[in-house]
Amino acid sequence: MISTPHPRTLLLTPGPLTTSEATRAALGRDWGSRDDDFIALTARLRTRLTALAGGAGTHETVLLAGSGTFAVEAALGTLVPRDGRALVLVNGAYGRRMVEMLRRMGRDHVALEWDEDRPVDPDAVERALLADPAITDVAVVQCETTSGLLNPVERIADVVRRQGRRLLVDAMSAFGALPIDASRLGLCAVMASSNKGLEGVPGISFVVAERAHLARCAGNAHSLSLDLHAQAEGFRGNGQWRFTPPVQVAAALDAALDQLEAEGGIAARGARYAALHRMLVDGMEALGFRCFLPPDLQAPIIVTFRDPGPPFDFAALYARLQAEGIVLYPGKLTREPSFRIGCIGAIDEADMRRVLDAIARAARSA
Amino acid sequence: MISTPHPRTLLLTPGPLTTSEATRAALGRDWGSRDDDFIALTARLRTRLTALAGGAGTHETVLLAGSGTFAVEAALGTLVPRDGRALVLVNGAYGRRMVEMLRRMGRDHVALEWDEDRPVDPDAVERALLADPAITDVAVVQCETTSGLLNPVERIADVVRRQGRRLLVDAMSAFGALPIDASRLGLCAVMASSNKGLEGVPGISFVVAERAHLARCAGNAHSLSLDLHAQAEGFRGNGQWRFTPPVQVAAALDAALDQLEAEGGIAARGARYAALHRMLVDGMEALGFRCFLPPDLQAPIIVTFRDPGPPFDFAALYARLQAEGIVLYPGKLTREPSFRIGCIGAIDEADMRRVLDAIARAARSA
Ligand SMILES: Cc1ncc(COP(=O)(O)O)c(C=O)c1O
Ligand SMILES: Cc1ncc(COP(=O)(O)O)c(C=O)c1O
Repeated sequence: MISTPHPRTLLLTPGPLTTSEATRAALGRDWGSRDDDFIALTARLRTRLTALAGGAGTHETVLLAGSGTFAVEAALGTLVPRDGRALVLVNGAYGRRMVEMLRRMGRDHVALEWDEDRPVDPDAVERALLADPAITDVAVVQCETTSGLLNPVERIADVVRRQGRRLLVDAMSAFGALPIDASRLGLCAVMASSNKGLEGVPGISFVVAERAHLARCAGNAHSLSLDLHAQAEGFRGNGQWRFTPPVQVAAALDAALDQLEAEGGIAARGARYAALHRMLVDGMEALGFRCFLPPDLQAPIIVTFRDPGPPFDFAALYARLQAEGIVLYPGKLTREPSFRIGCIGAIDEADMRRVLDAIARAARSA
Repeated sequence: MISTPHPRTLLLTPGPLTTSEATRAALGRDWGSRDDDFIALTARLRTRLTALAGGAGTHETVLLAGSGTFAVEAALGTLVPRDGRALVLVNGAYGRRMVEMLRRMGRDHVALEWDEDRPVDPDAVERALLADPAITDVAVVQCETTSGLLNPVERIADVVRRQGRRLLVDAMSAFGALPIDASRLGLCAVMASSNKGLEGVPGISFVVAERAHLARCAGNAHSLSLDLHAQAEGFRGNGQWRFTPPVQVAAALDAALDQLEAEGGIAARGARYAALHRMLVDGMEALGFRCFLPPDLQAPIIVTFRDPGPPFDFAALYARLQAEGIVLYPGKLTREPSFRIGCIGAIDEADMRRVLDAIARAARSA
């Protein structure tokens, strides 16, 4: 028996998130990483993640140890040809990070930028592709966690497909929360991690890659550790991870996927998050806070609120909530004075009530 | 309360290894990755790992999410200059892997190779350095887990220092089990991971890097995710990981380090492993098995036994032990017919007795 000496912490951050007791319980044993039952667990994870991305039949999942950033870099490094050119669509920190990755690995790239409160414009993407036939790949973030904005991935995918290029989607904070249909949209890759909408613990990231293109990418990666082609060959060969996998994290992800299925899949989870999101926005607006984004651009994942200025003091709010076991994200990513509150993870309406009550008490006492 | 429904598994593999109940219990809670207490935990890990590597005052620890391979690649990519040349000393799979990493990242390199049952020869290293002044960095594996062989790191370090080059040591399977003295040996970097001699769970690797050299390596890495310089700046700046850390794995490592201290540090742990190693070798020899390596080359970490051939059948032995909750490594890495049994992890002499008894029963029934 393993005991948890600590009270339940609520994480209202962009991740790691609050996990369920069942998910954490699955961390509690040792596994041989090359043993049959772990090989079966790995296969189960890969099949289920491919299906969740809408890629069954056309795509395959390559698991990696490490955080989401590793999967994004692995996808760009493995799937964008050495003599290709990537167009990165940027309206926040995670888009900018992809530009920096390509720069670091010396891969040719250009960027289109929008303000952090503007979605990517598919028409502008089409014009850029028409103007530059050398562009082979386009990369975009589905939910820009910087602001909480949802980019129009379907319409971007239509444009990219029409122009005969490949599209890589960083779906990190949206995966599990919002549907994505890799086959129908003809996506080259969907990148995500264990610890956001899937509600696992952090330590595993993955790429759901189009099989036919991945097969052409042998030797293309800039890195041995982040070579998705070599790892896919390993999974297809002996079913094993090339390098020591985080076995406990994998087991927790498997348990978390059981719970996602039991909840009713992405649609049901998305509905829970949408309800939490409505509660959060309504509650905060009732306290006088204003959202950074207009409602039609806002994903039900994380909400950026404008910092109203004195006497409001975010650091004081953070400390007050922390003392009650509620953890916010201590800092902003947008360029404007703001703070963010997440509405995903293994939390329910009673938890969100607890958070809003704590914020209301803190606001009254300020 | 979290329950472990499974019986205690013994892992006699090169990792992941058997962990203690206290270590796995530390996995049981959620943490905000940018919260004060996790920042304090991160600082504690870094200080303790630097001290364990004998690098206090001269070195600093950069933690990474991911497996040991990631730390090795991060060290080579960050610390070997783009216009440098690395000499890799190879007598097994992990040395060969460093060559492949350098090839992948397009970094100039040469290799010296020995058979898998021969240690690296420091005199040959000195001759190679004298003959090629363009070599800036030397890389070697401390315990070649392929065979279990211990390379003479001290004597190699003397040569490399005398010739004014830098030495990077992959200490993966030896770290925590055998001393290493980064300051005194003037090592540029020591690479290791959470889940071998430190007895944590897998998911974190780290590099104990010489501070002065690391400071000169801004922008040198081939990868954003594996850039040790940028991550070191982050740790020194706000104390945070740049990307979402595997918080539960970090907490388990912290607990595992508490247990290492309580046991009496590396010397005491090394003595426990040495006793387990003697039991294992004596027990296996009594059953008629022969070691691949002569005793003076053998590290007390993992032992390679020659496959005696029919009627012995390793696959049958593996299955027999697996049914009793004892996991061996299902496959060989050396070029000769052989199998390996580890003697590190949170196990004691009673556990090793259980393993040897199970092997004896399996041998008798074969
Ligand atoms: C959209 C997006 N991309 C990438 C990342 C990076 O993930 P990680 O912090 O796990 O490396 C995040 C993290 O929040 C994200 O939201
Ligand atoms: C000496 C050595 N180096 C590197 C590695 C790679 O570590 P990982 O499997 O964690 O990537 C290992 C793994 O056993 C090792 O023993």
